[in-house]
Amino acid sequence: MARGEFDTIAALYVPLTRGDPAALGLRDDAARLRLSSRDELVVTTDALVAGVHFLDRDPPADIARKALRTNLSDVAAKGARPIGYFLSVARPRSWTDARMDAFARGLAADGKEFGVPLLGGDSTGTPGPLTLSITALGKVRRGGMLLRAGARPGDDVWVSGSIGDGAIGLLVARRELPHLAGKHRRMLLARYRVPQPRLALGRALVGVASACMDVSDGLVADLGHICSASKAGATIELDAVPFSQAATAAISARPALRKLAISGGDDYELLFTAAPAARAKVLKAARAGGVPVARIGHIHAGAPIVLVEDRQGGILRMARTGFTHY
Amino acid sequence: MARGEFDTIAALYVPLTRGDPAALGLRDDAARLRLSSRDELVVTTDALVAGVHFLDRDPPADIARKALRTNLSDVAAKGARPIGYFLSVARPRSWTDARMDAFARGLAADGKEFGVPLLGGDSTGTPGPLTLSITALGKVRRGGMLLRAGARPGDDVWVSGSIGDGAIGLLVARRELPHLAGKHRRMLLARYRVPQPRLALGRALVGVASACMDVSDGLVADLGHICSASKAGATIELDAVPFSQAATAAISARPALRKLAISGGDDYELLFTAAPAARAKVLKAARAGGVPVARIGHIHAGAPIVLVEDRQGGILRMARTGFTHY
Repeated sequence: MARGEFDTIAALYVPLTRGDPAALGLRDDAARLRLSSRDELVVTTDALVAGVHFLDRDPPADIARKALRTNLSDVAAKGARPIGYFLSVARPRSWTDARMDAFARGLAADGKEFGVPLLGGDSTGTPGPLTLSITALGKVRRGGMLLRAGARPGDDVWVSGSIGDGAIGLLVARRELPHLAGKHRRMLLARYRVPQPRLALGRALVGVASACMDVSDGLVADLGHICSASKAGATIELDAVPFSQAATAAISARPALRKLAISGGDDYELLFTAAPAARAKVLKAARAGGVPVARIGHIHAGAPIVLVEDRQGGILRMARTGFTHY
Repeated sequence: MARGEFDTIAALYVPLTRGDPAALGLRDDAARLRLSSRDELVVTTDALVAGVHFLDRDPPADIARKALRTNLSDVAAKGARPIGYFLSVARPRSWTDARMDAFARGLAADGKEFGVPLLGGDSTGTPGPLTLSITALGKVRRGGMLLRAGARPGDDVWVSGSIGDGAIGLLVARRELPHLAGKHRRMLLARYRVPQPRLALGRALVGVASACMDVSDGLVADLGHICSASKAGATIELDAVPFSQAATAAISARPALRKLAISGGDDYELLFTAAPAARAKVLKAARAGGVPVARIGHIHAGAPIVLVEDRQGGILRMARTGFTHY
């Protein structure tokens, strides 16, 4: 999900935080409120617009589930347990009662799957496209919240699951990969439409990971966000990045997709750093989280730039939001 | 602000709460989370769409302030102190940087006035109209939150400030009252564009009011909401309803506006009930809150219907959302 604009107009919004530490400088996808001596409250908000973040003709239940799951993914990346969510809906006339029923069924299914209740919201008509805003609340033990800041030179860089399925899945949704095998197309489409928030892994990484976020803008751009917040650089070993069988098949047929896979968005996997001494703990957390993790690079001192090394030792230098030179 | 649709599709959304008591059955403009032994967290969400809740050509700073203030009004109605807010913005291309700067200045002014920080948010582009969603957080001592439910037969019905300025102010904004004196037009327009959240009054009513909400859908409809939640009826004495000098002038010129004043929305005054024995305490709370209050009727046993009595003892019978018979 595009969070870019909030970044670019941070100059506009950061003064509005009035220096409240709970806002974390608006740099961390979430706010942290200390409301009791034991727990911290994590609050995260995402806006989604038809035609921008999803296609209006996507199945309504999938739209609902993706909206909720992308928020739960932010909660997961903070190491928190979700408490509930608030939903704002601006609904165009073309969204009939039948479509809204299907939308609500999607929320009901995921509410059950993740044990997350709707706690409130608002609904209104709009002459524009379907526009959603979800605010999710989570709880984490005091001091445990995972942040973008905290990666230290020498730390390993890890990622959960597989990378690139979301971006390649969007191409499938746009019918741009008609020659790919049906089973691969279905898998990639499902990954694009219904991401998997890594809640159990996130919780297991509390006290283990030095920095963490979810991959929504793309692996390289998001590692750049960790670098900026942590005031360090990073190197990704391209061959170590985990691709699914379906993504591998798509990349084999069209090699340029490898670049898309690491720079596109919508993965909603956890991207995190941890000291080399914590490798066994990371693997234990992955078992607890029920998802594989891969060590894909390391953090080093220096400017917050992400380098991508390929097999031959060549270096693809990438800016925060894409390739600048290679 | 129209909350009507969330009510009408409550059948769709209420099951999504999974019976979580924090959702308060989605009937109370806010959720209540018990996160510590001392305090409760109040969370409220409102969606606003250009052309629906405000006019796209309204001053950007006023749009921002109204969006924030309507949420603070919900926090006030719960007896809570605001902690901060989250903002989602879906921004059309016509909203230039200059307009967004003015929008942010409006938020900055009110953030300072009410001591409320922005804690997070999201911003995205949209092909549709400017669409805002604000989620506000507030804190109230455990057990203190004011609810719609709780009004008892025999209780007085009270309202703060003056009623009808918002609805008549909208007519001024639409240039439908050109013959009204300039000072009255300016006052009504200001009341429509920049409501006054009654935060100090709300806090002072904790432990005093038996039920409370803010007037957003209109006095009669909102008293109907208190009646429904409290399982009781209510009678309003029309002559006791406080109208501003400006609204009185408008009503004198066009008597039909009296009906609009009590059935239109956008007042953002507090509507509350309290036992007759608490009258002195209510007046003390009003002094603490810096706003006058008026006793406008009473609660009685029976169906959740709001009756409006006029001077001659005639009865205007009103449904929850408007007149059905008179």
